[in-house]
Amino acid sequence: MKIIGEKINGTRKRVARAIAERDAEFIKDLASRQAEAGSTWLDVNAGTHPDKEPEDLIWLIENIQSVVDTPLCLDSANPEALKVAIKAVDKTPMINSISGEPERLEKILPLVAEHGCEVIALAMDEKKIPETYEKRIEVIEKVMEAVHAAGVEDDKVYVDPLAMTIATANQSAVIACETISAVHGAYPEVHFTMGLSNISFGLPSRKQINRGLLILAMQAGLDSAIMDPLDKDLQAAIVTTEMLLGRDEYCMNYLRASRKGLFE
Amino acid sequence: MKIIGEKINGTRKRVARAIAERDAEFIKDLASRQAEAGSTWLDVNAGTHPDKEPEDLIWLIENIQSVVDTPLCLDSANPEALKVAIKAVDKTPMINSISGEPERLEKILPLVAEHGCEVIALAMDEKKIPETYEKRIEVIEKVMEAVHAAGVEDDKVYVDPLAMTIATANQSAVIACETISAVHGAYPEVHFTMGLSNISFGLPSRKQINRGLLILAMQAGLDSAIMDPLDKDLQAAIVTTEMLLGRDEYCMNYLRASRKGLFE
Repeated sequence: MKIIGEKINGTRKRVARAIAERDAEFIKDLASRQAEAGSTWLDVNAGTHPDKEPEDLIWLIENIQSVVDTPLCLDSANPEALKVAIKAVDKTPMINSISGEPERLEKILPLVAEHGCEVIALAMDEKKIPETYEKRIEVIEKVMEAVHAAGVEDDKVYVDPLAMTIATANQSAVIACETISAVHGAYPEVHFTMGLSNISFGLPSRKQINRGLLILAMQAGLDSAIMDPLDKDLQAAIVTTEMLLGRDEYCMNYLRASRKGLFE
Repeated sequence: MKIIGEKINGTRKRVARAIAERDAEFIKDLASRQAEAGSTWLDVNAGTHPDKEPEDLIWLIENIQSVVDTPLCLDSANPEALKVAIKAVDKTPMINSISGEPERLEKILPLVAEHGCEVIALAMDEKKIPETYEKRIEVIEKVMEAVHAAGVEDDKVYVDPLAMTIATANQSAVIACETISAVHGAYPEVHFTMGLSNISFGLPSRKQINRGLLILAMQAGLDSAIMDPLDKDLQAAIVTTEMLLGRDEYCMNYLRASRKGLFE
């Protein structure tokens, strides 16, 4: 299970303030702690000011790279910002994200192909999120056609099936898991990732909902998550579920995690 | 999700002592607390003394029924003890259990048919537990042939796929879930139940393993569990997983459980 550390995100108030005030220590601390907690990538989102995005992204990247060597996941819908940011990274980044939206496919996929990036593909079309898994798969089929046309290998693609807020979409976890299973059947080399916290929006005791979604989606085939790597409960659920899914020979990882105090 | 309260079990030391000393208050307290916590059935196991089993079972049943009206799950491999016990219960009981063992099928199924009981069917043959899900399904096919011959309806049967200790059987949760899926495909009216604690034997932090198994097995089709109904973490996992599996319209059960303090 690969973790995309979600905390350096300019749409969160505290991070937006750190970006606005150029509070480098705050960002470096978030980067170090997420890297130590086992992130495979660190998501970097400069927020929602299109004019300032490239500059803010570069500032974030430079500060993060001054303390950790974890690859970055460049989180922007803006091809111009991505173009600039790709030049600033030390290691090949992941790109977050493409979707069925033609403009994003046309402008972002060539960057992905040129730089050999991993890329997150959202199961949505021109900002509409289909309500059934069958329609989400149709979107992913179109995305994969474009991916193949751009010469990007299937195993560079991380499909995000999009788990919507369950309080207003009763079947959202079911549809997300069905999307994973069906896409996996059609494209066995493709990976999956998912944000875990949107599902529980508006409900009490959100963490256990997010954790339940993680466990169910792992059974369906989820092999990566966009999450808070400092959340011990989620990390414990990953180690435990990997073992239950038969991927932890002699329970070695589970026992190692226990000795390190993960389950306390 | 239906719960079979597991606590009145004579193979547990404290319960064995209560049976030996005829400590009725201890048994009544276990019965009351499990019933209040939402058990659909209360398992009643008098322990492992064949000569005393019928008498002990009757004593347990009478004391339990003096405080609760929850149906009982008569837990014995001894047809003679079951015959006596069935006469002592106020409500139609569940029988725990039959298996592919011919003697149990021949002697216990007629009781099940005569009294209209639900019955747990273990996916094992003459005390051997097959190592693959394909072989477990073969056992269940034989059991179902006998079930049909006895005139018992499919929806009276609760198949226990048997989740072995994962420390010594790496794929045990996977095999249990595959068994559930395959049996469900072949016999859509059949129910499933499972003991949750055996999986984690010998490992630290057992509760989260048991809870993870519950969540994965519910996704595969588990609709009942033999468990400690007083375990709030397990109860919270059930409510949360039912919601994630799309079975809790408007999240009403989840919100009700939250208001009652289940997630605290």
